[in-house]
Amino acid sequence: MAREKPKKNPAGQIFSVRGFKAAGIGAGIKRNGAKDLALILSDSPATVAGVFTKSAVRAAPVLLDIERIKRGTSRGVVVNSGNANACTGRRGLKDAEAIVTFAEKALGLKNGELLVASTGVIGVPLPAEKIRSSLPALFQNLKPSGWTDAAEAIRTTDAFPKIAFAKKRIPGGRTISLLGMAKGAGMICPSMATMLAFFATDAPLTAASLKKALVTSVEKSFNRITVDNDTSTNDTVLIFANGLAGGSPLKPGGSGYAVFSKLLDELSLRLSHMIVKDGEGATRFIEIEVFGAKSRKDAELAAFLVKTAFFGADPNWGRVMAALGSSGADFRQDRVDIYFDGIKVVKDGMDAGKEKQAARAIKKKEVRLRVDLKRGKSSSLKLWTSDLSYDYVRINSSYRS
Amino acid sequence: MAREKPKKNPAGQIFSVRGFKAAGIGAGIKRNGAKDLALILSDSPATVAGVFTKSAVRAAPVLLDIERIKRGTSRGVVVNSGNANACTGRRGLKDAEAIVTFAEKALGLKNGELLVASTGVIGVPLPAEKIRSSLPALFQNLKPSGWTDAAEAIRTTDAFPKIAFAKKRIPGGRTISLLGMAKGAGMICPSMATMLAFFATDAPLTAASLKKALVTSVEKSFNRITVDNDTSTNDTVLIFANGLAGGSPLKPGGSGYAVFSKLLDELSLRLSHMIVKDGEGATRFIEIEVFGAKSRKDAELAAFLVKTAFFGADPNWGRVMAALGSSGADFRQDRVDIYFDGIKVVKDGMDAGKEKQAARAIKKKEVRLRVDLKRGKSSSLKLWTSDLSYDYVRINSSYRS
Repeated sequence: MAREKPKKNPAGQIFSVRGFKAAGIGAGIKRNGAKDLALILSDSPATVAGVFTKSAVRAAPVLLDIERIKRGTSRGVVVNSGNANACTGRRGLKDAEAIVTFAEKALGLKNGELLVASTGVIGVPLPAEKIRSSLPALFQNLKPSGWTDAAEAIRTTDAFPKIAFAKKRIPGGRTISLLGMAKGAGMICPSMATMLAFFATDAPLTAASLKKALVTSVEKSFNRITVDNDTSTNDTVLIFANGLAGGSPLKPGGSGYAVFSKLLDELSLRLSHMIVKDGEGATRFIEIEVFGAKSRKDAELAAFLVKTAFFGADPNWGRVMAALGSSGADFRQDRVDIYFDGIKVVKDGMDAGKEKQAARAIKKKEVRLRVDLKRGKSSSLKLWTSDLSYDYVRINSSYRS
Repeated sequence: MAREKPKKNPAGQIFSVRGFKAAGIGAGIKRNGAKDLALILSDSPATVAGVFTKSAVRAAPVLLDIERIKRGTSRGVVVNSGNANACTGRRGLKDAEAIVTFAEKALGLKNGELLVASTGVIGVPLPAEKIRSSLPALFQNLKPSGWTDAAEAIRTTDAFPKIAFAKKRIPGGRTISLLGMAKGAGMICPSMATMLAFFATDAPLTAASLKKALVTSVEKSFNRITVDNDTSTNDTVLIFANGLAGGSPLKPGGSGYAVFSKLLDELSLRLSHMIVKDGEGATRFIEIEVFGAKSRKDAELAAFLVKTAFFGADPNWGRVMAALGSSGADFRQDRVDIYFDGIKVVKDGMDAGKEKQAARAIKKKEVRLRVDLKRGKSSSLKLWTSDLSYDYVRINSSYRS
């Protein structure tokens, strides 16, 4: 499963959202000549919202975007892979600004209308001149169907590009489209996994409504595939909404907003699952679900630490119990039930005698683990992870070579 | 370095502490016939103190010891490896109690005078009958020089037994001896690494003073080699003091206590470093030191997360910066300095141009990393860790087979 390409769109359909163009080319940032420079461009000013890393060490593009996104509208984003432009000080900020300023002028945009994102090696100055001189070629490649090229260009150690697309009719007859692309990989290792995701939609929303929907979706998807403190220097999720589907803005509480918000949830989940499946060296996709926690915080603590029990090749319920014990979650050890793919392997904190069935279940490529803390009525909390094979160390040790 | 045996005592000296005997034999708990049952016995009632796992999932022996240690005196501890007697419910408690009760009767001790510790597989009932029937042979092997056998018998995946010994004259002319033994291994993986350590001394101390010295030493040694929440179900550190060195009890604040406390610090540190060097798959011993944190808590947050940057084969300063960023410690990214073995590789959060020297430094078998947050005057905080090689996954996946 892991490191395989996802299934192709059945009809070989080319993804697009009206009013948006995208492109991806090789600018020579990556030594192997692979695509490493992307652009998403809206024909008209779009409302924009973003979620950024909470790390105290934030890359130059993140610092720049946090300022620029305050205007609430944008025309798009320039993204490079191969260099994170992180820990690059004032020079890094100047480099990032020079690139978007050059692009804005060349495209006839106003100052501040473009955002920027980077991913790759930390602490090496951005090859800004290389990027700038490649921008004209990038612009020439812009097309409504350019998303595959763009998704290709934002990869670092990702085994495959990640795109998701959906259309949905909203009450009143309009149809809205939503397209998302992402990169991840390396998520198992703290501090190495920059996660980038970009969405484009023709739905009409104000910046505030868009932010609300984005924050909600990210919390239930991208934030559920990494431990809280595994944030990288460059993590960025952006969404652009150009409103070309027409009509008045979709408002929280309204049925149109509900459809849009659900669509964003779905695509965020699909992309985040692709990221897990592409995790460096991962061979299994694992869903962890915690029930009956005293509070949502307890459910989170338990789920995130249980995740660590799957690190290595042979998860067993003893490790899950031990992880629960050190999670800080409130529960009694003699009340916990644990299920591996529906098989109750632990009953009231003890072996339920299903060792063999559990061993079979855990060998599957997709594993569902459920923990019932029987401590309260907090709603269930799900997160997704993968295990780790020998590939892992190899990938990271060759990351800088 | 890793998985090598430590240097032998120069004189081939046999460790012993007057009034204590120890033993270690094979009781058939481990399938390979290796030693798996140990006993430490004091000829007379000794004052005792202990530090136990903070996990919410505590093994039966831990639950039993927490009750028994309240009396403040003990005659010793029965330890088995190969089975943790964790997640074994009431049966586990009964098994642990039956074993110590049997041993107490056979040795003519009072009920409650023995403690118990276990390490090994979680969730499998203790082979109590096997252990009980092996106790007579264990007693026959008791001898003042039996510590090596005992240290051998408490190993799980440890590559070598861990013993440390020191003598010191205290003001007033008395000489005190202190002996410690430990097991660790697997510390890199949360929830798999039971840490056991046992100390015996002839110094005279009350249970309260002994506890104070032990807690202080553990905090600076064993608690500095694992992340806070990496506590296992069975972590236990015990110290027995029989007072045979003579004289009145050493009291906190006094010079004799200071000598004893320093000796305990030293031995705890030596044993905990042995545990790091024996970590599953570890090939490097790494010291992380954080300076200039705003508070001790900030120093801890930073140091513990920087530890994660060394996971994998190629630590570089970008990963250290990223780890600092997501640690939650208070600092400014443009003020941080980072040193690899004395070489300043990061100055004010940016590359200091010493990449090549740093790469050489990091290839050494013992690496010192210093981080200066330049944020406050909090004293420096050190912790120790190791990296991780391909061996790791192999060891854990074969752990239960």
